[in-house]
Amino acid sequence: MEEVVAGIDIGGTNTTIGLVSKAGRVLAKDGLKTKHFPEIADFVIAANQIINKQIENLRQDSPELTLKGIGIGAPNANPFKGTIENAPNLSWRGIVPLAKLMSDSLQVHCKLTNDAKAAALGEQQFGAAKGMKDFLVITLGTGLGSGIIANGSLVYGHDGFAGELGHVIVVPSGRLCGCGRQGCLETYVSATGLVRTYRELNPETSPEMDARAVAELAKAGDTIAIEAYRRTGEMLGFSLANSVAYTSPEAIFLFGGLIRAGEILFKPTREAFEKNLLNNYKGHIKIQPSALHESDAAVLGAASIIWNE
Amino acid sequence: MEEVVAGIDIGGTNTTIGLVSKAGRVLAKDGLKTKHFPEIADFVIAANQIINKQIENLRQDSPELTLKGIGIGAPNANPFKGTIENAPNLSWRGIVPLAKLMSDSLQVHCKLTNDAKAAALGEQQFGAAKGMKDFLVITLGTGLGSGIIANGSLVYGHDGFAGELGHVIVVPSGRLCGCGRQGCLETYVSATGLVRTYRELNPETSPEMDARAVAELAKAGDTIAIEAYRRTGEMLGFSLANSVAYTSPEAIFLFGGLIRAGEILFKPTREAFEKNLLNNYKGHIKIQPSALHESDAAVLGAASIIWNE
Repeated sequence: MEEVVAGIDIGGTNTTIGLVSKAGRVLAKDGLKTKHFPEIADFVIAANQIINKQIENLRQDSPELTLKGIGIGAPNANPFKGTIENAPNLSWRGIVPLAKLMSDSLQVHCKLTNDAKAAALGEQQFGAAKGMKDFLVITLGTGLGSGIIANGSLVYGHDGFAGELGHVIVVPSGRLCGCGRQGCLETYVSATGLVRTYRELNPETSPEMDARAVAELAKAGDTIAIEAYRRTGEMLGFSLANSVAYTSPEAIFLFGGLIRAGEILFKPTREAFEKNLLNNYKGHIKIQPSALHESDAAVLGAASIIWNE
Repeated sequence: MEEVVAGIDIGGTNTTIGLVSKAGRVLAKDGLKTKHFPEIADFVIAANQIINKQIENLRQDSPELTLKGIGIGAPNANPFKGTIENAPNLSWRGIVPLAKLMSDSLQVHCKLTNDAKAAALGEQQFGAAKGMKDFLVITLGTGLGSGIIANGSLVYGHDGFAGELGHVIVVPSGRLCGCGRQGCLETYVSATGLVRTYRELNPETSPEMDARAVAELAKAGDTIAIEAYRRTGEMLGFSLANSVAYTSPEAIFLFGGLIRAGEILFKPTREAFEKNLLNNYKGHIKIQPSALHESDAAVLGAASIIWNE
């Protein structure tokens, strides 16, 4: 009897739903537009229809196939309560008991956590962190997310909200952050942070400039774009050097759109990292890209919440 | 049959050796001068003589009493290898296999870790953190040490050197640190950091001024001493607010000579902490003194390495 886990990655714009085998194969994958479902009840129905259809299809070849559980990666997820709480980028207001709604409907157990924590579990289960007991995953998207694995386990913290490295203050009285404070790491190191840096260096920048365009410019040799990446990497490397003092990881994995720039980002990051590390950590902590394929990583991460149990 | 654990706290100047019951009673306690033993072999003999004598005394009342193990808190301890490695404040050079030397001699198992990690285990086993799964202990002595408990377990990190919060860089290009870098937290928040701040505020300060004297002055209402404590607390509170973003602890316990100043330190610390916290952490993380009696804490912490197994 083959078991599969449904992995659901909920973003502000898109939701991806897939079925994942224990070995980390994505056996089915479909998407829906999160914003088409302003009512959570409708979203649950639509998601479950997709999962049921995916299972039905797979059963044509494997009649014994069963659904072991559902793992969900979502913004503002409370992993202890299985709820999404006051997510500013989702249309569902207040506290949404999504795990209960999903498991009541499909009669399997369901767990959720935020996308960066899911990414860390996915890296451990299916990626480059197999066998590692202490590592960090940093997700560099619109914001900066993080998942911390220590002693082999994901660090949830007292309330489920550990790993908010994007909101470590790195520049007191620095850039205004969406959280209302100033100088948070993600205001410098993220897609939006990169564009802010580029714009500071080149005030004539068109309002349409985005991180992808800065990456294209940098790859084409544009000195301002390269400098924007250098400053981003410098801030990231410095912050990761400080992070090491907490959990002393074996490796740090970077994930997300920003790392498509490759060495344009990694080189200044590693340089600032080594320069700022305490002596006894120097030279033996790897900073490397996630080994998960970007298009599958979110679903793998979400599914690994269940496969990691 | 009553079991006891020997707890040994090794400092640059003094070593304390005690026997601790499972309930956390210190049944015997003696000291020796660390510096009187430039050869580690002599230190081991002396320490074991003390432990044997202590057991012999207790056996007069409890003939069945046995030694379960030896826990050692020491600077530059490698908990995975049971070694003290290149400790600048001890006269034993290089890598000292202390756990093996002790257990070979007394025929019981022996573990060691650094003093701040031992303090965290002690707080969990015998102090105010009983039942807590996520908390921090910050030791404020000559330097700043820390022990992080996450998911109920002490965070050792990949190499055993997690929890070096004293060496998080809080002021880039700031004060020169003993580690060779600049701006480490412990150059501001520690006994030596406090005196440096006092001296910056009052350049006429005598070279003999120490943290104890600054505390006395502050308690007597001296405005410069109070301001030195305020700045120390402000930096500590800011840094602890950033620390929360890593492991989201339920509480933070402060320990060590510096906290004898009481609210003169705690008030500015808590104010800066709350001011700099991310919104979802605000208002529910306690910063409080360790519940362990200062004179017994080091021995209790060292013994808890074994009792926590």
